[in-house]
Amino acid sequence: METPDNATETSEPTGIAAQDWATASAEPQYRAAVVDLLGALAYGELAAFERLAEDAKLAPTLADKAELAKMASAEFHHFERLTDRLTAVDVEPTGAMEPFAKALDDFHRQTAPSDWLEGLVKAYVGDSIASDFYREVAVRLDSDTRSLVLAVLDDTGHGNFAVEKVRAAIEADPRVGGRLALWARRLMGEALSQAQRVVADRDALSTMLVGGVADGFDLAEVGRMFSRITEAHTKRMAALGLAA
Amino acid sequence: METPDNATETSEPTGIAAQDWATASAEPQYRAAVVDLLGALAYGELAAFERLAEDAKLAPTLADKAELAKMASAEFHHFERLTDRLTAVDVEPTGAMEPFAKALDDFHRQTAPSDWLEGLVKAYVGDSIASDFYREVAVRLDSDTRSLVLAVLDDTGHGNFAVEKVRAAIEADPRVGGRLALWARRLMGEALSQAQRVVADRDALSTMLVGGVADGFDLAEVGRMFSRITEAHTKRMAALGLAA
Repeated sequence: METPDNATETSEPTGIAAQDWATASAEPQYRAAVVDLLGALAYGELAAFERLAEDAKLAPTLADKAELAKMASAEFHHFERLTDRLTAVDVEPTGAMEPFAKALDDFHRQTAPSDWLEGLVKAYVGDSIASDFYREVAVRLDSDTRSLVLAVLDDTGHGNFAVEKVRAAIEADPRVGGRLALWARRLMGEALSQAQRVVADRDALSTMLVGGVADGFDLAEVGRMFSRITEAHTKRMAALGLAA
Repeated sequence: METPDNATETSEPTGIAAQDWATASAEPQYRAAVVDLLGALAYGELAAFERLAEDAKLAPTLADKAELAKMASAEFHHFERLTDRLTAVDVEPTGAMEPFAKALDDFHRQTAPSDWLEGLVKAYVGDSIASDFYREVAVRLDSDTRSLVLAVLDDTGHGNFAVEKVRAAIEADPRVGGRLALWARRLMGEALSQAQRVVADRDALSTMLVGGVADGFDLAEVGRMFSRITEAHTKRMAALGLAA
């Protein structure tokens, strides 16, 4: 089976990426990988909902609180779309999510923001790396799953809101930048360590990630994907005024 | 001006209840009362969103967590409808909500649930008494505001979910009933004391509540309304297996 061997090459889809779900899901290992992916993404959205709702409590103004509540609600609707899809393909959503609950809960527990700005940086960093990760994966997916994954990565608008507020805070007090840069580094470290744990645990998912269900598991390729994601993170932090 | 002198009589609308917003809002005191009402209701929905999202963390299962997140998201959409209406009548929503933030925040702070069941009872009790209160008020409102208020009181579905779970818990361990009955009594006490504070503070709103903008402020009528709400609460608690 042919699949692109590097997610950044996005020419003509080949292999599974050229198929729809009905065709691609006939292969049990591919089906299992997609169920894993949708389960992980769904739990991620539910956890993001909780985290944003929690951060809303730290909001300095009522308008900021309403803005975070709106984002939380958008994440919840993504969660619903993902669990609806799981149900539509005869998978019980809870069962699909459970393997990923611990890693995501651990991540959130170990990175509980201590104030409003840390919460915003976390929302921004977390969203961006999740979005990079799912875009890397999307190119390897069948067309139906790919549209769904790309759709739920869209339109929550956290990015702009967080960037604007964080920039303004650093401008007002440059020392804030140093503290938030350390925080962003810690977030990235925790995210990578949880992600590597998940990859090591879930065979079907990992095999898909590294370039094709039939090609076996290549830890080096996963490493390269993580490097690409880390690089993109570093650039984003620099643009935000934070040395990553 | 004629308005029904008791909210339980809901025959033909008269007075403001027979008018639409365009006509009714020409009177500044009525307009101010409705802005207060929508502001209080909007902040209540935002606070309910936060409370349910917080309770979602206590959920014993992933399915329960998803159910609470769904309710929270529904509350957020009510919040949006109310703030959209405020904006549509040229009122800045934050300004309209702020006078009610302290009372609602105090209520939630003083009644933070210590476990999942307390959270459910609080969601149920809080929703029911808020709903009773707004239904009492709705009969005195112009037709446009009345439809909006009744629409946002609908369809969150907390009630059934909470009742089912609480009943099952009491069946499994009857001692739970005693503890939750005390809890429900405390919630009602706090709710009434915050509500009375708000009523005392907000003249236009209170005047409308007691039967007509032109008729002056009648504390006795407010007292009767609170009695009706308390009675309905007592009946609901008994039906739930909790002596109120």
